[in-house]
Amino acid sequence: MEQQKIEAAVEFARGNRQRFVDELKALIRIPSVSTLPEHTGDVRRAAEFIASELRRIGMENVRLIETATGGHPLVYGDWLHAEGNAPTVLCYGHYDVQPAEPLEEWITPPFEPAERDGNLYARGAVDDKGQMWMHVKALESLFAANEGRLPLNIRVLIEGEEEVGGEGIAWFVQNHHDQLRSDLALISDTEMFAPDLPTLCVGLRGMIYTEIEVRGARIDLHSGMYGGAAPNPFVALAQIIAKLKDENGRVQIPGFYDKVAAPSEDELKAWKALPFDEEHYRQTEVGSPELTGEPGYSVLERTWARPTLDVHGMPGGFIGAGAKTVIPAKATAKISMRLVPGQVPSEIFEQYKSFVESIVPRGVEVTVRLIHSAEPIVVSTDNRFVKASVEAMHQVFGTDTVFVRGGGSIPIVGDFIRELGLPTLMMGFGLPDDNLHAPNEKFHLANFHRGIESIIRFFAAAGA
Amino acid sequence: MEQQKIEAAVEFARGNRQRFVDELKALIRIPSVSTLPEHTGDVRRAAEFIASELRRIGMENVRLIETATGGHPLVYGDWLHAEGNAPTVLCYGHYDVQPAEPLEEWITPPFEPAERDGNLYARGAVDDKGQMWMHVKALESLFAANEGRLPLNIRVLIEGEEEVGGEGIAWFVQNHHDQLRSDLALISDTEMFAPDLPTLCVGLRGMIYTEIEVRGARIDLHSGMYGGAAPNPFVALAQIIAKLKDENGRVQIPGFYDKVAAPSEDELKAWKALPFDEEHYRQTEVGSPELTGEPGYSVLERTWARPTLDVHGMPGGFIGAGAKTVIPAKATAKISMRLVPGQVPSEIFEQYKSFVESIVPRGVEVTVRLIHSAEPIVVSTDNRFVKASVEAMHQVFGTDTVFVRGGGSIPIVGDFIRELGLPTLMMGFGLPDDNLHAPNEKFHLANFHRGIESIIRFFAAAGA
Repeated sequence: MEQQKIEAAVEFARGNRQRFVDELKALIRIPSVSTLPEHTGDVRRAAEFIASELRRIGMENVRLIETATGGHPLVYGDWLHAEGNAPTVLCYGHYDVQPAEPLEEWITPPFEPAERDGNLYARGAVDDKGQMWMHVKALESLFAANEGRLPLNIRVLIEGEEEVGGEGIAWFVQNHHDQLRSDLALISDTEMFAPDLPTLCVGLRGMIYTEIEVRGARIDLHSGMYGGAAPNPFVALAQIIAKLKDENGRVQIPGFYDKVAAPSEDELKAWKALPFDEEHYRQTEVGSPELTGEPGYSVLERTWARPTLDVHGMPGGFIGAGAKTVIPAKATAKISMRLVPGQVPSEIFEQYKSFVESIVPRGVEVTVRLIHSAEPIVVSTDNRFVKASVEAMHQVFGTDTVFVRGGGSIPIVGDFIRELGLPTLMMGFGLPDDNLHAPNEKFHLANFHRGIESIIRFFAAAGA
Repeated sequence: MEQQKIEAAVEFARGNRQRFVDELKALIRIPSVSTLPEHTGDVRRAAEFIASELRRIGMENVRLIETATGGHPLVYGDWLHAEGNAPTVLCYGHYDVQPAEPLEEWITPPFEPAERDGNLYARGAVDDKGQMWMHVKALESLFAANEGRLPLNIRVLIEGEEEVGGEGIAWFVQNHHDQLRSDLALISDTEMFAPDLPTLCVGLRGMIYTEIEVRGARIDLHSGMYGGAAPNPFVALAQIIAKLKDENGRVQIPGFYDKVAAPSEDELKAWKALPFDEEHYRQTEVGSPELTGEPGYSVLERTWARPTLDVHGMPGGFIGAGAKTVIPAKATAKISMRLVPGQVPSEIFEQYKSFVESIVPRGVEVTVRLIHSAEPIVVSTDNRFVKASVEAMHQVFGTDTVFVRGGGSIPIVGDFIRELGLPTLMMGFGLPDDNLHAPNEKFHLANFHRGIESIIRFFAAAGA
């Protein structure tokens, strides 16, 4: 693609900034909360909104795909007419969002996008509607500046179940290798390490998400009459959890750390050079009196390269205001473990399950369930797509890209590698304080626009 | 009172059995659920129903009393014209009931009383409308057989907030010592140890009901991004709870057992003689694989005379179906301790609070709150009222009374002792399988009638 046309595409994006944001706001107003059955219709409306826009900008074969797993539809579209042996890039994103609760903590309503201080506040603003929309708008700009053609082949695959485990897309990827044949997957669902610092994410933790259900008495009992004789499932769960992780944050499951692969010396050295102030992080991002986790590892190592275990909720019993003196018949703990390269999710689950079953307190029965899992990932930085992306972002941001890892999981990255042999480029434009999955989620609009320009230039460079 | 008149009163009660039950059914049909605002009108209707009946049978000064705490009214009535130096008995009961949910588990609707197999099934059948009604019907029978006079002085005080904490009656008792001056409080809100076994309850456990709130990060965080650095309030709570009670069920709070008063050798011996099969209890009442609690104590000791600690619920975080990877900013545990004679609720709360504050895990802050408390009670069995009651029940049941304790708390008993210097006689006619606070609550009608006869004979003997 000629340089002039690349600049014309960037100019097109700049000239249409307000419209791009307005369209994103319209998409955000559709409350596509994938985990809540009452929003099933909204999730589909969001899919149709995107499909309609893909058709409008010039993508072909655009359709909603229903998967065999019966969940929310995928949105697919492609344009495969690039000249020469231009590569094919699979653009992945998701249009579903997390629930917005607790609603009372939002400054403006979660599904009424509001601009304040250069940010767009709404559920899904950055995760992932806003970032996914950058791909669409970059493609639109290239089509517009280049007589309806793209500098490379593009497939777009956008799912509506990322926040609920991604069962449908996993099935689709597994069963449609040919239809998805590509050279690279591009994902914009990560963040920049710091404002103004272009960032590629080259590793992700994996995870297993589990439930431990503890059953004691057959029915709920009154603690006055039965306290001292009937087992208490919450006390049993507390005893189990206290044995899973010691007070230094070290997981106590036998074998848990055996296969952990440490980052390379070079990677560790690069992390040390990143602009990171632990005390500032504690104060501004976490806000707790102290940070926790394994001694001897930096915060970046602990959140990127060390496995950990967290409890997310403990349903059961009485959770209303005031007092009810129930000994509940059962209680559950939702527990996940973040895994790092070397650890195999299925092996870790078996180790965990065996260990929990070996420490069941008296008087109760325990069931350990796997809800879902994702593999840990490290991607190579030594390829032409990484180079093209670093150059593109240098042009937009005027500075070198840093390579980081992410502490979270993007399970589809593992599917792309395993099923399609496809490397993934994780080029994200969120910020660390964007409140993902929390009230007052936001997207810094300057990054939305720089992201679109970066992706335009990346596509052009990758297709050259 | 002449023996002939006593027998006439019993005959009156026998001749009016069906009417007594029909009246109780009419009272039960008023869904006086004190905790639900939509039933406020029903609660008042139930109070008026009882007041009207008290007037009809011959009680004086009958009125509804509004308390300064603004809740449901008390029903008061008295008759204070007994001859000589007959004692005054304060008859206490409550006309409010627990919510009936889950409705689908009721065989017949909770507020449409149904007779099956000699039982009356309905919400409130035994707790406490049916048992309170025995007092009213015993008084009616005595008035009817004795030319409108009673053999002793009677005050009736019936509350409508027992199931929601009894704030109003506590205020009233505290501020109206003179108006309530009596020699004994009679409560029928307990159960018989076994069918056909007349029972007096001579001890109750006290309690403190508390909340431990643990705060970590300032806002909810994503466990992928922050897991390994941010404190997890549920893990912290689990560590605290695991230290509060060891795996044998022994509470680990320093000083917790220091003041525990053991039951007397005689009392323990009597408990051993009670018809109690631990394995049958485990199978039919609890249903857990094993019973728990302190080693070296029988089930009756553990539930009547040993303190314990239970967790009732752990609000916070994510409790929906499926997975959400939140590290919640805060989590709470609702924890109560049952206390026994010797233990002082305020002292135990301070010991507990200090201990919890001394074991706070790294990275979190903790607040320990007292929600409410009740004093443990033991009543002397060596007084004329106990003797009169034992004799009365022997005449009705043909067998000796057993003395038991209750594991639960009846806070008003503590108020009667502390505020009015008033001993309490807990003469109840429920059965262990009456499903209090649960679906299909029932009252065995034979016990309703035997209860009325027992109370007639008790009043006559106490007034002699």
